[in-house]
Amino acid sequence: MSDYKYPTPSLELARFVCSLRYDSLPVQVVDKIKSILLDGIACGCYGRTKPWGKMVYEFVQELGGKEEATLWLTDFKGPAVNVALALGTAIHAFDYDDYHKSKLHPASVIIPAALTMAEREGGVTTRQFLVALVAGYEVMIRVGLSVNPGVSRLKGWHLTGTCGVFGSAAAAGKILGLDEEQMAWALGIAGTQASGLWAFNYDGAMTKRLHPGRASQSGIMAAILAKKGFTGPIRILDAEDGGFWRATSDKPVPEKLLQAIGKKFECADTCIKPYASCGSNHAAIDAVRAIMANQHVAVTDIEKIIVFTSRVIKTQTGFDYLPATVLQAQMSLKYAVSAAIMFGNVLPEHMEEKCFGHPDMRRLMEKVEIVVDPEMDSLYPEHFCSKVLMITKDGKRYQVRINDPLGSEERPLKWDDVVNKASNLLRGIMAESHFNKLVEGIKNLARAEDEDIGAICKLLKI
Amino acid sequence: MSDYKYPTPSLELARFVCSLRYDSLPVQVVDKIKSILLDGIACGCYGRTKPWGKMVYEFVQELGGKEEATLWLTDFKGPAVNVALALGTAIHAFDYDDYHKSKLHPASVIIPAALTMAEREGGVTTRQFLVALVAGYEVMIRVGLSVNPGVSRLKGWHLTGTCGVFGSAAAAGKILGLDEEQMAWALGIAGTQASGLWAFNYDGAMTKRLHPGRASQSGIMAAILAKKGFTGPIRILDAEDGGFWRATSDKPVPEKLLQAIGKKFECADTCIKPYASCGSNHAAIDAVRAIMANQHVAVTDIEKIIVFTSRVIKTQTGFDYLPATVLQAQMSLKYAVSAAIMFGNVLPEHMEEKCFGHPDMRRLMEKVEIVVDPEMDSLYPEHFCSKVLMITKDGKRYQVRINDPLGSEERPLKWDDVVNKASNLLRGIMAESHFNKLVEGIKNLARAEDEDIGAICKLLKI
Repeated sequence: MSDYKYPTPSLELARFVCSLRYDSLPVQVVDKIKSILLDGIACGCYGRTKPWGKMVYEFVQELGGKEEATLWLTDFKGPAVNVALALGTAIHAFDYDDYHKSKLHPASVIIPAALTMAEREGGVTTRQFLVALVAGYEVMIRVGLSVNPGVSRLKGWHLTGTCGVFGSAAAAGKILGLDEEQMAWALGIAGTQASGLWAFNYDGAMTKRLHPGRASQSGIMAAILAKKGFTGPIRILDAEDGGFWRATSDKPVPEKLLQAIGKKFECADTCIKPYASCGSNHAAIDAVRAIMANQHVAVTDIEKIIVFTSRVIKTQTGFDYLPATVLQAQMSLKYAVSAAIMFGNVLPEHMEEKCFGHPDMRRLMEKVEIVVDPEMDSLYPEHFCSKVLMITKDGKRYQVRINDPLGSEERPLKWDDVVNKASNLLRGIMAESHFNKLVEGIKNLARAEDEDIGAICKLLKI
Repeated sequence: MSDYKYPTPSLELARFVCSLRYDSLPVQVVDKIKSILLDGIACGCYGRTKPWGKMVYEFVQELGGKEEATLWLTDFKGPAVNVALALGTAIHAFDYDDYHKSKLHPASVIIPAALTMAEREGGVTTRQFLVALVAGYEVMIRVGLSVNPGVSRLKGWHLTGTCGVFGSAAAAGKILGLDEEQMAWALGIAGTQASGLWAFNYDGAMTKRLHPGRASQSGIMAAILAKKGFTGPIRILDAEDGGFWRATSDKPVPEKLLQAIGKKFECADTCIKPYASCGSNHAAIDAVRAIMANQHVAVTDIEKIIVFTSRVIKTQTGFDYLPATVLQAQMSLKYAVSAAIMFGNVLPEHMEEKCFGHPDMRRLMEKVEIVVDPEMDSLYPEHFCSKVLMITKDGKRYQVRINDPLGSEERPLKWDDVVNKASNLLRGIMAESHFNKLVEGIKNLARAEDEDIGAICKLLKI
């Protein structure tokens, strides 16, 4: 069994994960991961207050079990594998968590896996924890890139779920100290649990929120089983019969998996969201905000708004029907554009039914048209571009094109922006003094070699 | 949300599940389900003694948690959602559990879901339990038929995993008494967790064993969440963007989903296995056994064995390499045929390394050739046919064709055969008096309207 005749893609990934050390992380990667962690925790603490966040919290609390990991902002501790399910759902509960242009939301999968496992194991340093986060990010994102994100997405998959399991297994396995063979098994056991279908858009169902939690859970289970000696397929990605690439993509790009691995860190390219809307909508929101800020167009003067974008974005968020649920409001490109016009911004408070159900909003949404632009389509997913053309009743035309939205690698949010976003999210949820301790704790993470991640976990209890 | 404009396939399924009653079950269906239950329990109690069965048992025991359901033949009780993971893995742990020509293993998914949930809820009658089993079987198998089993399988999916989640949700949801809308949500939440990749064949990894447990667990979670009000996509099957059919099959057959539902019970067509080998190998084993029994060919006289079969079977079990693990031995058609020649049968004891690793066996396997027969291919998967042509060194040719293997709907095992198989499996695992009580308990199931399934659960403790 251990006599592998050739290096498989997942064995190579396993080798990378096992050999990754804190000293090999560029300082900007460590800084980015700190922003991501603060953002993820804030999204999760906010997301658990939403109905779907509450239900999964409740489900996990009812299961009880071994007190391994803290369910944020409760006094409950439970098995890492269960707590991660709830935390992943909570972080993604408002589609406000980070995303990567490989079409996935890594924080909501990787943070729960690394944090619950670190707490479970005990004695994990903040540096080991950061390395596990980076390992998880690299694996999840690179699997996403290799599957060909646009193609797999149009096949119906939600890549946060399907690719997330690999990243979670890597992060959890790194904390567990798996050897290379066990790590490859873990990736195999994780990959065989890859799931997440996009069908939620039609009726605005809550399942999108669940996908990262489920992926996080699957990866943790995979890592724990692999450590017990449960073998997973080492050709999980590339197997012709039953490999992940072929099953979930009609056109995988295997060479993307290991391209410049360990040199280029994909986690640094993660986008921290300024808007509480699907990442696909961000460029159009930016464009609308730029027009409205510079041109002072009155809402009542608008005749038509045309959004030019890529085919995947049109399919994913360009639906015609009016949002009936928060999920649909967050996914709808027409709604995102309309909210940006009406409110000047797209924040969590603009995703309430009184906003998306308002008659004025509905009238505005009817003026939005979405058109596939072949040139933008060819740039996708390297760039989530959109161009907005706004036409007023008196025939004036305003146009702005955004190649890369605010928050992306090209226009990243600064630490203070992230703190500000987190502060807005946690107002009323966490005392200010408590919040400040959390921010300081994360900012100063990994100062010392022997600093324990347990201190952060303690701040997440009530 | 509850104002659905059109009946979707999963809403129709939900309607069927919610309306199913004990009185509408034909007597032969009830009888078949009893056989299936005895067989499934025997396979599980045997399977938990295997390394992979033990590891998942241990994993679940370590999680602890609310004492809802019994982990068979232990003194441990835990959350249904965890116990079902271990029981599903145990039942499928030796590939000796039932299968259906829709290319899936229903007992290993459905029995754990229905039984753990019945125990969790308490006060569930044996009739309610049997109805939940039938509902689970119908949903799982019909989703399998509708996805186009051969096509989805060749895409790389293990349908026990991918379609299993739906059946588990139906069985668990029936026990929970979900209404139609909740049941449709449960199917949606389950479907979005559909997973199970075939990559295990190459290195003989253990993940195949895990798929039914995982599917069982996912469906239970789906049902519990749906009851809490967590919404699932009601177009989980047919959604153009993100539906299960399109994502997991290039050529679904939607009309198979509801064809004669409630009139024809697919569970009656389930095959209870006489051989501890993949169902795809059964017809060839039958053919070889017939030749060997009637012609008295000496093993040393055999020059060549040619197996004619369908393309899916050749892809799935016709691999060239020699088995290095129990999983590969059970999947290998060449090994199955060789074991049938050497031992006259293919039972669990023939799947040990001393058998599949023996030099004589390897020499025999080299004489086996597998050829796709277009006519048999066209009959697949309605019939898992194989024809074996055996040629001896002195030029004699013996040929037997089997259209439907022993244990299939056309040649079903009798109750006494099932008892006999179970008795062989449980020898040394369960005292004879205990075994006899279990057999009697299952045989007499559903005699009385108020009989509680808890009595069977008690027999499964130690």
